[in-house]
Amino acid sequence: MKVAVLRIGHRLVRDDRTTTHVALVARAFGSQKLYMTDVDDSIMRTIDVVCKRWGGGAPEFEIEIIDQWKNLISNWKKDHGKVVHLTMYGVNIDNSIHELRKETKLLVVVGAEKVPREVYDLADYNIAIGNQPHSEIAALAILLDRIFKGRQFRKHFASAALRIIPTAKGKRVEEISKS
Amino acid sequence: MKVAVLRIGHRLVRDDRTTTHVALVARAFGSQKLYMTDVDDSIMRTIDVVCKRWGGGAPEFEIEIIDQWKNLISNWKKDHGKVVHLTMYGVNIDNSIHELRKETKLLVVVGAEKVPREVYDLADYNIAIGNQPHSEIAALAILLDRIFKGRQFRKHFASAALRIIPTAKGKRVEEISKS
Repeated sequence: MKVAVLRIGHRLVRDDRTTTHVALVARAFGSQKLYMTDVDDSIMRTIDVVCKRWGGGAPEFEIEIIDQWKNLISNWKKDHGKVVHLTMYGVNIDNSIHELRKETKLLVVVGAEKVPREVYDLADYNIAIGNQPHSEIAALAILLDRIFKGRQFRKHFASAALRIIPTAKGKRVEEISKS
Repeated sequence: MKVAVLRIGHRLVRDDRTTTHVALVARAFGSQKLYMTDVDDSIMRTIDVVCKRWGGGAPEFEIEIIDQWKNLISNWKKDHGKVVHLTMYGVNIDNSIHELRKETKLLVVVGAEKVPREVYDLADYNIAIGNQPHSEIAALAILLDRIFKGRQFRKHFASAALRIIPTAKGKRVEEISKS
């Protein structure tokens, strides 16, 4: 399944760290793209460094800066993709996950500050990861985990320079030769 | 199972938003306590407002400011609790979750900046939510979700003023009478 993430409502500086987390989760949990409307160089740089070191850069994962999120959503839908909006007001993930897994192309919308009402109307699915306030980072992680059933943690990231050898104590990292 | 979260390495201002997300996830995903070493009033206030509005305040969930995280960890262990450190260098969650579910008292350590080597040694479990860099917020969410098997999303939060009626479009919120 092709999954992209759209970050809306990013407030420069205030949301830089949380949007960086959104980007890192999008990459690590198997989505292929993060769309953002605001250019934030620090986020781009962080993701660039992570992809060079740990692999999985473009075309596996990339960030694309867009002008208008509304255009992206309507083009996505024209192209037979479905739009999932994560919101604490939505339908419980358990009631939608079977349907979602049947889709082939999903755009997951995560907001920072208050999300415009239109997003609720444009979305094919308004989904709650629990109906309590928490974090769009956590919500994105749980959604992708439910979609990929934990397989995302065994994903191979191409062109990595380093690889972790999982260990019970300390840190073990292996350099990957480029031969 | 009793689960508490320990946030270490919080840098004032820079990490305020991410630590707020950690606190919100801790509460929403069924842990009972967040321990922090740095006092940050904005985080306390946010959690206070959330608990007043959506329920689940003390003793169900509370934040406790501590002096020394090392003392907390050693007291926790003396009291027969186990310590889980979330780190990308650890053992895959899939290999530890069955053991973890048998524990009765867990302290989950999540770092902001680089975590001191001692934490790796003091922890009973160093667990990776995938071996890729992402987010301690996402890692905490996935760990708690694996421990509670999704039941945390059906948790009742006591003394709430408001309750969400899950809905496919828009927002439906019900006031809860205090009679």
